[in-house]
Amino acid sequence: MCARVRAAGAGAGEDDSAAPPVAVDCNGADLGPREVAAGARVAAEQGARVLLFGPVEELGAPAPGITIVDAPLSIAKSADPASAVRASPQASIVQAARAVADGRAQALVCAGGTGAALAAGLFNIKRTRGIYRPALALPLPVPGRTVTLLDVGASAEARREHLVQFAFMGAALVRTVFGVSRPRVGLLSNGEEAARGSPLVVEVHAELQARTRTPLEAFEFVGNVEGDALVAGRVDVVVTDGFTGNVALKAMEGVSQTMLSAIRDAAMSSPRAKLGGALLRGALGGFRTQIDPEGQGGAYLLGLRRLGVVPHGRFTRRGFAQAILRAERGAREDIVGQTQRALAQAGALREAPLSASLASLPPRE
Amino acid sequence: MCARVRAAGAGAGEDDSAAPPVAVDCNGADLGPREVAAGARVAAEQGARVLLFGPVEELGAPAPGITIVDAPLSIAKSADPASAVRASPQASIVQAARAVADGRAQALVCAGGTGAALAAGLFNIKRTRGIYRPALALPLPVPGRTVTLLDVGASAEARREHLVQFAFMGAALVRTVFGVSRPRVGLLSNGEEAARGSPLVVEVHAELQARTRTPLEAFEFVGNVEGDALVAGRVDVVVTDGFTGNVALKAMEGVSQTMLSAIRDAAMSSPRAKLGGALLRGALGGFRTQIDPEGQGGAYLLGLRRLGVVPHGRFTRRGFAQAILRAERGAREDIVGQTQRALAQAGALREAPLSASLASLPPRE
Repeated sequence: MCARVRAAGAGAGEDDSAAPPVAVDCNGADLGPREVAAGARVAAEQGARVLLFGPVEELGAPAPGITIVDAPLSIAKSADPASAVRASPQASIVQAARAVADGRAQALVCAGGTGAALAAGLFNIKRTRGIYRPALALPLPVPGRTVTLLDVGASAEARREHLVQFAFMGAALVRTVFGVSRPRVGLLSNGEEAARGSPLVVEVHAELQARTRTPLEAFEFVGNVEGDALVAGRVDVVVTDGFTGNVALKAMEGVSQTMLSAIRDAAMSSPRAKLGGALLRGALGGFRTQIDPEGQGGAYLLGLRRLGVVPHGRFTRRGFAQAILRAERGAREDIVGQTQRALAQAGALREAPLSASLASLPPRE
Repeated sequence: MCARVRAAGAGAGEDDSAAPPVAVDCNGADLGPREVAAGARVAAEQGARVLLFGPVEELGAPAPGITIVDAPLSIAKSADPASAVRASPQASIVQAARAVADGRAQALVCAGGTGAALAAGLFNIKRTRGIYRPALALPLPVPGRTVTLLDVGASAEARREHLVQFAFMGAALVRTVFGVSRPRVGLLSNGEEAARGSPLVVEVHAELQARTRTPLEAFEFVGNVEGDALVAGRVDVVVTDGFTGNVALKAMEGVSQTMLSAIRDAAMSSPRAKLGGALLRGALGGFRTQIDPEGQGGAYLLGLRRLGVVPHGRFTRRGFAQAILRAERGAREDIVGQTQRALAQAGALREAPLSASLASLPPRE
């Protein structure tokens, strides 16, 4: 490694604690690397240990719990992240992913977008054995409940076996993180009947139904659900391909932002409305906090040998701090191992190629 | 026809006006046929002429402008609408579609869901020549602007040529109905770059770009748009397949309803909040009206030889009245003919089979 490593404040060395820090790529955030670093300081104040990758002169003063690695090269906006990752070993996200792969960090947080995180993760951290494809699983900020949607954009298309595995991955995540013992899983479609949906969805429906016939299964398959299930709370997990999931998520965010800004405008439109808005502010505050995506910290990147968390690029320090804390907690809860074991138990892992099983290789996980 | 026809009030016979009435299937609405009939009376008071199909004893008193055909048989909840349509010639939606096909009515409104409307329409009214597939085009109720999304659920999957044609159909609709001379059309995807999206979307992007190179084209192709474009107003038309469109629409409706009810709850949570809510009500009223789906009347069913309008099954009389008025106005504006001419001019119609063109058949449209 040719990167300059700047020591953090006293007592923040990497050996202080049993668990390695969280590697954070600061490049690519809408508000710049400085904001991500500010989020890291907030997370560190709450006990997280962080290995920051980004342009050192923008990352601010060192702080206890934080180690800064100067990595100014950003590929966050690359149109072809896979090529950029291969061509740019010094890119901040590549260095961060390598730190996780090497065991110098225990989880990855990437402020610079899904594409770069996914490419760097696949290339360096690699897929968990038996996983077809990584998925981005986002716990949606719905008042009073949590609905986890996956995939929200790791892949633009999916095959049957991918979506089936996503159901098991989502259920394992929700069980580990939210303590739901037998998650209710729905398959996103354009109608609730088993026959509704694209041919792919109809196939996946049939397979999930066949695989969850007994009440002993790891999750309850409730069948197809429509888009409104993403906020209705009748299910804990909603499974879809990354194209549909991403479109639905952005549409929901758009509606939410439009409505909040319309309410704000209405509450400024007259002295009477201003007074009304002021009186209502306290009661609405809790709701606004509940639906704030920053409070959740972003999406889990599942399917790699170490956990990833992808916050939204437009987050402020508050959201980045949550992302780091989420990654740190997720590593401690062993989401990756729990998921792997749940999938193995359910027979939902991709079978090893024949040559590997004949050779009886020791498990690399 | 063995259906009993009950004459409407004085002066409401079918011969009073040059244009035939709108055929309305009353079965299948959440609030029952009575509510649809009440909507028809509201529309008739505003000058529409209506041919109502439903259970006569539930449709209320006859009224000027309204003719009632007793058609109690409903297939609105059928799991297999295509078979139900073929097996049930007396079903209300089949009778309504036949009235449109025969010229006894000029447009179709179906309160009983997309599946039945589409099957009955395809079977009786038939596709316009050169149209691959019908599409449901919904002008979304976005404050201060209109974004028309298609397809919101006519087909669960689409091929390249379908989506390309949807772009031209949507543009022609928006030009005819909203007077937008050169609509901006976007293609729904999980990223704005041309390379982002499913393989299908990437293909469609390339073809739409190639077909709209000159500023003389019927619309401006703005490229890929993400889900938030459905409320952002940067485009007039958003094109997608019926699966994705339906999921996105339901997700948006879900968020909108959840937020409105959370605001309502907040405004009832304390005496102080109640007062605030009361003071704010007037200012928020306009916004609530703007985003109310009932105000728009529902989706245009495009691609048949006559216009269809599909209101939401959970509408009240207000929404059904708007649907009928929308159908009546759309028939008067000749949406079907305008769309057909625009597609012919753009070379966007499916070419006639060789046998038909060799035989030089006269146009049947």
